[in-house]
Amino acid sequence: MTGQPLPGFRDFFPPEHAALRVIFQAWREASRCSGFTEYEGPELESLELYTEKSGEEIVGQLYHFQDKGEREVALRPEMTPTLARMVASQHRNYRKPIKWFSIPRLFRYERPQKGRHREHYQWNCDMVGEKSVMAEAELIGTLCLGLSLLGLSAKDVVVKVSDRSWWDSFLEKEGVGEAERPGVLRALDRMEGATPEQRREKLGGLAPAVEAVWQGRSEDSEAVQGVHRGVKGLGYGDWCETDYRVVRGLAYYTGVVFEVHDRAGKLRAVAGGGRYDGLLKRLGGEDLPAVGFGMGDAVLAELLREKGMSTPSAGGAEIFVVAESAQQEMAWDVVGQLRRSGFSTDYDPGAGKWGKQLEMAEAKGARWALLVGREVGEGKLGVKELATRKQSEIRWRMDAAGKICLEPTPGEWAKVLGS
Amino acid sequence: MTGQPLPGFRDFFPPEHAALRVIFQAWREASRCSGFTEYEGPELESLELYTEKSGEEIVGQLYHFQDKGEREVALRPEMTPTLARMVASQHRNYRKPIKWFSIPRLFRYERPQKGRHREHYQWNCDMVGEKSVMAEAELIGTLCLGLSLLGLSAKDVVVKVSDRSWWDSFLEKEGVGEAERPGVLRALDRMEGATPEQRREKLGGLAPAVEAVWQGRSEDSEAVQGVHRGVKGLGYGDWCETDYRVVRGLAYYTGVVFEVHDRAGKLRAVAGGGRYDGLLKRLGGEDLPAVGFGMGDAVLAELLREKGMSTPSAGGAEIFVVAESAQQEMAWDVVGQLRRSGFSTDYDPGAGKWGKQLEMAEAKGARWALLVGREVGEGKLGVKELATRKQSEIRWRMDAAGKICLEPTPGEWAKVLGS
Repeated sequence: MTGQPLPGFRDFFPPEHAALRVIFQAWREASRCSGFTEYEGPELESLELYTEKSGEEIVGQLYHFQDKGEREVALRPEMTPTLARMVASQHRNYRKPIKWFSIPRLFRYERPQKGRHREHYQWNCDMVGEKSVMAEAELIGTLCLGLSLLGLSAKDVVVKVSDRSWWDSFLEKEGVGEAERPGVLRALDRMEGATPEQRREKLGGLAPAVEAVWQGRSEDSEAVQGVHRGVKGLGYGDWCETDYRVVRGLAYYTGVVFEVHDRAGKLRAVAGGGRYDGLLKRLGGEDLPAVGFGMGDAVLAELLREKGMSTPSAGGAEIFVVAESAQQEMAWDVVGQLRRSGFSTDYDPGAGKWGKQLEMAEAKGARWALLVGREVGEGKLGVKELATRKQSEIRWRMDAAGKICLEPTPGEWAKVLGS
Repeated sequence: MTGQPLPGFRDFFPPEHAALRVIFQAWREASRCSGFTEYEGPELESLELYTEKSGEEIVGQLYHFQDKGEREVALRPEMTPTLARMVASQHRNYRKPIKWFSIPRLFRYERPQKGRHREHYQWNCDMVGEKSVMAEAELIGTLCLGLSLLGLSAKDVVVKVSDRSWWDSFLEKEGVGEAERPGVLRALDRMEGATPEQRREKLGGLAPAVEAVWQGRSEDSEAVQGVHRGVKGLGYGDWCETDYRVVRGLAYYTGVVFEVHDRAGKLRAVAGGGRYDGLLKRLGGEDLPAVGFGMGDAVLAELLREKGMSTPSAGGAEIFVVAESAQQEMAWDVVGQLRRSGFSTDYDPGAGKWGKQLEMAEAKGARWALLVGREVGEGKLGVKELATRKQSEIRWRMDAAGKICLEPTPGEWAKVLGS
């Protein structure tokens, strides 16, 4: 056994997991405040859910196989098809617009590189059943709230807003037939970082008109104007810019699309989304308009690291009970009762010597050592703040129900010790 | 598209997801209080992590395939091999005993039935590096705390404690060679619900001795006594019983094993675990003693349903802002600011008529409607508690920073309306 995970997969040891939890908490809190409710689906789905209707680029990166029941199955590469399937089966039970979010784990077989693994977590928010561009504004406002809960601001990131319908009209005007347009949009999607020469080479006759777009010389479409107005109304006007260079590769987008990038432009997109009005019907469901976004954990974590955002310690318990061997049973009782009262409490299960227990308390990062020593019979215990070495005596007594009461309670120790 | 997930897989719509979150929160809180820290690993691992070292029964139920890089890979059927791999690679960085927990999603291809799916979530707690039976007691105490946070008590469930070493001595005494013992233990593991006749048939000469065990006529081993003493010390003595009929099928257990069952005995095991001292070394790591348990979400949810435990609503936002069309921008501003202040807030993005917005507020289950009407220019808004129809006027003003302040604040509305 190598000790290593598969290439492109990640082990989350306690410090990495603590950083991940901070991100999840911000995502959940922003979703809750914005009126989205959580759902989850299977990580394994029928292969056809992806092959028949999704964009080409995803299918080539699928983890798929035949299960023991000879079904063609795939690990989900994105959440939208599952959402579409679920909405199709139960949307009649929910008042529109449906506002749902999820934090699925997704899988793609692609070359692992910075900020891109073969699995990642992705915050997905979707609004189904709303035609107005306030749906787009809602989603952008929600993702801005999520990022701001992590300490990021409009100085750190920008939401680039674009419009696939605008591109459609543009390409029509330029004489590109409807059938060719998805291919052109995919080509445009891959032009980030390309030189004007490379663009000219790829686009031929289209190049001059596209170059004007690349230089930012285009007027906002009505939809994009509406999005800006709504996002400004919700308080995030300074986070947003129009940028038609954003086209989003996926074939199913139909209207406004957007991406979140770091202002410095050093990283891959932090999030991306848009309107996909036709997809639910195409997947065999009702003809419901829909808007959604996805934000992965990997690029976001990179950005947070770059900005020097601190993550909480992955430390163990707050209170560590240190006991003389004769007081072991009393110590267990105290441990059990502290835990039931909601205090994170630990001790040495090996019941080592007093000094070794104290040393373990420090090594494990506890804040307090609760000392159960000889004077326990006189109703006394000791409390020591390990970092400051401040120490105080506290009292314990058994109440009528046989429950050990500490005076002062752990919540008051900081005050008593003047910490 | 069928609209259905694959057989044995589950869609978690908002109400089911809310029930799942309650379980996760109890698991996390019990882990935290007991001094366990969270980790996570990949859901896809090298096939050999399971085929070479785990129990036979798991391997036959694996979801495995060859990835695009021609690696033999498998969806994880259990967390212990991943834990062993991770501990082997980093245990030197952590003070022993290592106390880690995780809530992985696991996959097994088996016939779906009540309380058993092809994927489930499983609370895993493990303690690595501790020889004393207080490790077992710690784990049992932690799972009892988790169950009690969900409203269950010793009246609802029982922790059955057994000992694989005890069985080893028993089988040795009965003349069963070491090589045959794993097979006998697996057979014993499958005897739940078997009649004495069936046991006789399967066990031949061993039957009379085993029958005595099945009747409960065995003395507690020293390890089992120690576990009972520790669990009692931690306050869960009445949750535990010795029951040697519990043997746990997995080949890697070496000492005390335990299972949690509903007292009525109607369901599958709620949780199971034990000591697996040899496994880490066998997986190529250090020779560290270890104890762990796993508790799945499915049987637990069934038990909670049976006991009539209520789950929270999966409702949307608490405050729904209703606005006259002329006040739309003011309404967006209020929505954005309430959300940034941590209040779950929603509105009608389609900006329907007043009555339709109010009706949507009710349909979406909001508690409060915040009414932004004609009198907003005079510094006035309305607040309506939708369930009671109680209504009151409140004031708003803009502070120096351009932030809208509500007086009283949403936190005070219940008091103002006498709710």
